[in-house]
Amino acid sequence: MPPLRAIVFDAYGTLFDVHSVIALCEQLWPGKGTALSQLWRSKQLEYTWQRSLMRRYEDFARVTEAALRYACTALGLQIDEERRGRLMDAYRTLATFPEVASALAELRAMKLRLAILSNGSPAMLRPLVANAGLRGLIGTVISVDQRKIYKPAPAVYRLAVQRLSVTKAAIGFVSSNCWDACGAKSFGFRTFWIDRGSAPVDELGAAPDHVIKGLDELAKLLRRS
Amino acid sequence: MPPLRAIVFDAYGTLFDVHSVIALCEQLWPGKGTALSQLWRSKQLEYTWQRSLMRRYEDFARVTEAALRYACTALGLQIDEERRGRLMDAYRTLATFPEVASALAELRAMKLRLAILSNGSPAMLRPLVANAGLRGLIGTVISVDQRKIYKPAPAVYRLAVQRLSVTKAAIGFVSSNCWDACGAKSFGFRTFWIDRGSAPVDELGAAPDHVIKGLDELAKLLRRS
Repeated sequence: MPPLRAIVFDAYGTLFDVHSVIALCEQLWPGKGTALSQLWRSKQLEYTWQRSLMRRYEDFARVTEAALRYACTALGLQIDEERRGRLMDAYRTLATFPEVASALAELRAMKLRLAILSNGSPAMLRPLVANAGLRGLIGTVISVDQRKIYKPAPAVYRLAVQRLSVTKAAIGFVSSNCWDACGAKSFGFRTFWIDRGSAPVDELGAAPDHVIKGLDELAKLLRRS
Repeated sequence: MPPLRAIVFDAYGTLFDVHSVIALCEQLWPGKGTALSQLWRSKQLEYTWQRSLMRRYEDFARVTEAALRYACTALGLQIDEERRGRLMDAYRTLATFPEVASALAELRAMKLRLAILSNGSPAMLRPLVANAGLRGLIGTVISVDQRKIYKPAPAVYRLAVQRLSVTKAAIGFVSSNCWDACGAKSFGFRTFWIDRGSAPVDELGAAPDHVIKGLDELAKLLRRS
């Protein structure tokens, strides 16, 4: 195996913890927060896949808002402009998981280039990375928006090859979404699935190369191999 | 609006009731049937979208089996060859909803051509249609398998135009899956969503033209318009 020269990270759920959005759902609609955030998230993803296949791309902020409208209607929850605004703002100021900053610094010390490749629109990703203080560690932030299609389309993963000018075999791809790691594996990256729950590997014919429990395991794993 | 010359139906959940599969899940794993059938179905659909985007098409029987494996593992349920075989067989012998035969006969009496357009593989659809005694009513059975991509890709809906030699504006498309009706609407069909639950319309930028509660409403609606 050629040595890796760059590590590309998914954003939501991988570097950034969406817990604060879930907590805000519960604060706004006590007792309904979990149901709302689960349905919101599952519709958000479904809409990215369905719109990609329908060739009706809209950016991730609009898809996320559409999924929120659907989820509120389905659960019989009233939502106004103010609540919608607060929930969307929460998406722009997510905290990173506790191990992220030190894990990224360790990878940088290994002379690896670091990048984000996300479904998020540029307008969502910019404040997210700045707010978390990651601009010094993550050199490149790539949004699918350039290709007007969502993960796991190969055209999305190819963006990382193009922007980093590194061959796909020298790119490691890290995601907590198993299907995203499978998509990246199918494209040709060496892939690391962060299994934060204890879910089975998705049965998509392209299993991730490595399964880790957190980002702190990554540098160790790379040093060994 | 030009008059409709053909009506194209989705199969699973639209003409055919998957209840017997759900009941068998419950019989095989008492107390876990609902959780299993829900996770199985949601993974089945996710895999069709994800594999389509990844360009790793596999036919619906294999996707359905892969989703079943995932769901059993996730829920900690043991599955052997015999149980797997029984569940897959149940998919080939689904009953139709009670109103289907009379509703289709009524549409045929209106000189409409009737077809099925399904994610199902030809080997799944053939016994399904024969077993339900629909071969005399449904003249054309179309599987996405010819295009190696799943709904809601436009190439799938285009298959119906090609096979029926009818313009898209003269085709009515009926599905109980809202996202499927949205995909068909986006392609250019006149669309009928059968809302068997009471779910909101999906927010995909292409809402179905009509919402009905069952197939028996269709002929009435067409006579009025």
